[in-house]
Parts: sequence; C-alpha cells; structure tokens
Amino acid sequence: MTVLEEMIGGIRPLDQGAMAEARSHQDRLTKPRGSLGVLEDVAVRLAGMAGACPPPLPAPAALAIFAGDHGVHARGVTPWPQEVTAQMVANFAAGGAVANAFANQVGASVTVVDVGVAADLPSAPGLLSRKVAYGTADLSQGPAMTLEQAAQALATGREIARDLVAAGHRCLITGDMGIANTTASAALIAAFTGEDPARVTGRGTGIDDATHRHKIDVVRQALEVNGLGAGAVPEGPEAALRALAAVGGLEHAAIAGFILGGAAARVPVILDGVIAGAAALAAAGLAPRAIDYCLAGHRSAEPGHATALAALGLRPLVDLELRLGEGTGGLLAHPLVCAAARVMHEVATFDSAGVSEKNS
Amino acid sequence: MTVLEEMIGGIRPLDQGAMAEARSHQDRLTKPRGSLGVLEDVAVRLAGMAGACPPPLPAPAALAIFAGDHGVHARGVTPWPQEVTAQMVANFAAGGAVANAFANQVGASVTVVDVGVAADLPSAPGLLSRKVAYGTADLSQGPAMTLEQAAQALATGREIARDLVAAGHRCLITGDMGIANTTASAALIAAFTGEDPARVTGRGTGIDDATHRHKIDVVRQALEVNGLGAGAVPEGPEAALRALAAVGGLEHAAIAGFILGGAAARVPVILDGVIAGAAALAAAGLAPRAIDYCLAGHRSAEPGHATALAALGLRPLVDLELRLGEGTGGLLAHPLVCAAARVMHEVATFDSAGVSEKNS
Repeated sequence: MTVLEEMIGGIRPLDQGAMAEARSHQDRLTKPRGSLGVLEDVAVRLAGMAGACPPPLPAPAALAIFAGDHGVHARGVTPWPQEVTAQMVANFAAGGAVANAFANQVGASVTVVDVGVAADLPSAPGLLSRKVAYGTADLSQGPAMTLEQAAQALATGREIARDLVAAGHRCLITGDMGIANTTASAALIAAFTGEDPARVTGRGTGIDDATHRHKIDVVRQALEVNGLGAGAVPEGPEAALRALAAVGGLEHAAIAGFILGGAAARVPVILDGVIAGAAALAAAGLAPRAIDYCLAGHRSAEPGHATALAALGLRPLVDLELRLGEGTGGLLAHPLVCAAARVMHEVATFDSAGVSEKNS
Repeated sequence: MTVLEEMIGGIRPLDQGAMAEARSHQDRLTKPRGSLGVLEDVAVRLAGMAGACPPPLPAPAALAIFAGDHGVHARGVTPWPQEVTAQMVANFAAGGAVANAFANQVGASVTVVDVGVAADLPSAPGLLSRKVAYGTADLSQGPAMTLEQAAQALATGREIARDLVAAGHRCLITGDMGIANTTASAALIAAFTGEDPARVTGRGTGIDDATHRHKIDVVRQALEVNGLGAGAVPEGPEAALRALAAVGGLEHAAIAGFILGGAAARVPVILDGVIAGAAALAAAGLAPRAIDYCLAGHRSAEPGHATALAALGLRPLVDLELRLGEGTGGLLAHPLVCAAARVMHEVATFDSAGVSEKNS
C-alpha cells in the first residue's frame, strides 16, 4: 500500500488563520454582514485552501473529462449503446459537446482522458491516452476492477491534476463520460453511505420504470456479491480502495485521484454531478481531508447525488435539474466561485469608501 | 394615460415558431433529451424573445442600478442611516461595491441612475442624474409618489433600457440601491399578490425581532392608508400605476420601466432580488407580456421574493441565500443564461457528430 500511502499523504488541513482573516475581512466590506450567503463561505474556504487572504482567483480553470466503459452495461441498465462512450470522446475532442460549449463560456480548458474506454481511440488533440483497461468487469458478478487497476486509475487522476496545476491552472473541474456509469455511481454511493440502493439509484440519462427496477436489482446484486451489503464501508483507506475497485468505474477511480491531486496542490476542485459525488466519497474514504478542497458545483437530478453531497457535507452551488455529466454542472459553478473570490480582492471596506455602518 | 399606453404598447408576444424550432433543435443535440434541465427552458425562451433560433448570445450585458430614497425611512424600519444610499452610489461609481466586482467577473457594464436619492450627488463617470424627487413620501402616511412622479420614473427606466440596447447590449440586468427599499418591496408584493404583510416582510439587510414586527405593522398601515388592504390590486394598467405610486419607490418604478423597455426591445431582462421582483409585479400589472422577457436571476433570502416569483411564474437560476441587492444576484445568473444560449450555437447534433442515439 505504499503507492496509496504516498497518494493520500501530503494533503494539508485548511489554514485556519487565513480563514479567520477572510471572515474578518468579509465583515469590513461595504455590504451587510452575511449578505452574500453561501458565497461568503466559499470565499473563506478558498482562503483556507490556499493559506492566503485574499485567496487567489481560482482561474484559469481546467476541466478534465475521464472516460471509461462498464462491464455492467451488458446487464441492460441503460438504453444507450456502449459505443457512445467512444463517440462522445471524439465529440469532446472535436469541441462539439455541451461541456465544450460551457467551457468556452467560462474560459476553462478541456482535457479528455481515456482511462478505460472499451475501444482503441484514434489520437486527437486534447485527448490523453491513459487506458488502464478496456472497460471494467461486470460489478454485479464480482469486482469491477482489480486493486491494481483501481490504484493505477487513481494515480492517473492525481498525475493529471498535478500536470494541470503545473501548467498554471488554479481550479480543477471534474468531468466524466461512461455509458452505464450512473449504475456504478449508485453502487458506490450505497456502499459508502450504507443507504438502500432503491433510494440512490436513479434514471440516469432516461430509462423507463421497468429498467429502473432492474437497475436497482443490479446495484443490490453488486453490493451483495462484493460483500458490501451490510452497512457503510468501514473507515480507512484500504477498505475504501477495495470498495472503489469492487463497484466503481475506472473514471470514478481517476476522479478520486484527481481530487487527491488537487487537494495536495491546494487548489479548489469543483465537483460535477453524481459520478463526481460517488468518486468523492471514495476520495473521502482514502483521505478525508481531501474533501476540504472540494466545492460541489451543482446538484444533479439523480437522487443518489443529494445523498452523496449530504454525506460529504457539501452544499451545491447550482441546482437546475441538470443530468448530463461531462462536467457541465461543475463548469456552470466556476463563475460563482470566481465571484466569491473576486469580492475579497476588489470590494471597498466601509472605511475606505466612506460608507456609514448600520446603527447597532 | 397616453404616456402609459405608449409605454405598455409595442411589446410583442414570444415567437412561438422560434420556440418550437428551439425545442426541436435541443432534441437533436448530442445530449440526452431534457438533460440540461432548466437551461433548456431558458434557451427556448431566449429564442421566443428574439424571434430567432438559435437565439443571439445575451452578451454583452448591462447592469443598471437605480437608486432612490424612501420617506418611510423615518419610521425606523432599518438600522442603516439614509445617507448610505448616496454613499453607496459613490461607491458604485468608484467601482468599489460587490456589484462592481460581480460585473467585472461576468463582463457586464455598470450604469448608476439617480432617480430619487435624497441628496445632491456630485457627478461621476457612469452616474446618470435622472432625479424625479429627493426621495419618496412616507408610504405609511399616504401615497409615496404622485402618479406623475411614478410615470416619470417609469419613463426614465424605459429610456435607460432603450439607450443601453442601442449601445449594443444584448441583455439587461436590474440593480437597485435605496435604504428602506425592502419595506416598499414588501408593500408592493403584498398589494399585488394579496398576501398578508407578515408573510412577505423580511429582515432586509438585518434587523432584530422588534424592528421586524414594527416593519410588518408599517407595511400593513401603508396598505390600509392607501386603500390597498383588501385583496390583490385589480387587473389593468391604471390600478397597477396607482398601487406602484402608492407604496413603491422611485427605483421600483424605474425598474418596472426598465423591464418594459427591455421587453419592447426584445432583449432578456435578468431580474435581481426582492426589489426587482416587486417592480416586476408592477410591470406585469402594466403589461403582462413584459414578464415573458424576464428571467429570475436568483432567489433572495427575503421571504417576499419567493411569493413574487411564484406570482410571476418565474423560476430563479441561482439560490445561494444572497440578500444584498444592487443587481448582485442577477449578475451571477448571467453566465448561466449565456451558457444556455451558447449550447444552441456550438453543440453538435447526433447526426453531425456521428453519435448513436439511445435505443427506444
């Protein structure tokens, strides 16, 4: 477990001094105290992550879309053909997906990482080939990944985070692509929270009632066959890695590593939707402090996502019933996070602006 | 009423053909149907406003901050001194307020309009002097404005909207400044919805329980003394103007005119918080179609705002417990609105990208 230990070490706690300074600075700014609501907490957390007040602007941002396929696709949990994963990777590389349009809107770069697509992909600009396997095994029959595969995908995600920060990015955004990955996400969320599969398994990109019931059964089978049916995964990195490998996807493992990498680099990681939420639960199991560096970009329409966010203690910034993935919800949150930080740099204090304070 | 008739005429209904085309285009894009949630509706409405599919990108945006003072301040409804209105106008002009920081974040211009500050303001760049009066009269003793004052403020707001669109802006965002203006907003919302003052009167920028109870009493008095205590304002522009003049502020009237102006120019108007919501109820009374051109930027922490949005049939895009005003919540929504429009321009279709559709 030395690779694992190395990966989860080196994440510093939030800087309490910088956070206290940020809170006190907020209260001197020309606005009623607390009037920026959730964004005040975001600014304080950004200060804690960076160990500086004011915190650096979290820009430019980098979206990393981790793509992988899922053996459980064979169980008929989705009406989408598996080859859509590879086709969408080509669409991302060509700039034609919603994630690309949103990234253009917020000025984020897009990196696509093949960690487990079940096809050989032609090379393309912005596409990194880091294939660990041609998709996972069927999680309803046994472990989806070996421990080695999961560890390799984790290391890949962490390396991508490190490289993006080294290239000058000051905010990381998680993205994902993988037909059937809401099934693996539901299994991860059920495993890590101990919640009933029926409550955390959603309709993904759109399935009928019968397929939904079947999907819940498949998630239940996955937990049972992998010995995860009785309560939440025990604490500690070994158990977390085992659960991640058992019912996760290669993109989940890579995203968990991406979170660990962002946290080690003291850079905020904006989580996208239910896939990121599931991966973050795994990251929290590996290194609880990593979640201090996460911001929940949005809440997706998937029911398991709210469960994951509650377990992580994160409040979503955007809540518009998106259920697309790719990083779209994380991208939409980026200007909000920047706005929170910008207040700390640009807004005048009562003293400096000559504005009277309220009578107390 | 010819000025009024001219003002409320010329607002076209949304273009149903463009909206149908937008819906159909959304369904051909490389994403599961409906997976962009609320943003799909936004894109369809933008197409209807512009009468074009894809709709033009709603950028650049212009924030107009309408500032006015309130005679009801004398009743002790807020702990903030009245001179803070003028001080904050200077802060906006100097670029030091939160609205300025958020405008910088989203690339919006900022125009500050004095429609009723109770002081002579030194001229400053970006500050337009359109003073109708040195504040309103005390709405708890009689009408806050004469009908002529309200009409003049309406015309001012409409003219500002027209000028900003003529200058090339493709999206308008409402902003406000006026110590005690949540009291007038509560009175407007109670008047236009028929809701009990106790349910729509909030704590504004922060007041204690006793002041809150007093504020509710003041709102109740305002409705009674102005003959607005029995149910919602009747339909029709004359009654709406009368109610606006009776319990509104000069900035509310100007914002209502700004909405009418944006609608006449077929440009989306992003509403900020409770002050904009109250003004939009007046605009809806004057010209119901105007609301078709409005997007609710956010939901503020003020309880009356949710009531106003429900009556207007608008769903807020951002919901982060902000309670600052100035246009801050509207500004935060602008990138989300742009993202919704951008999807219509940049995202590939299943056919063009060679992506398989789901099996039905």
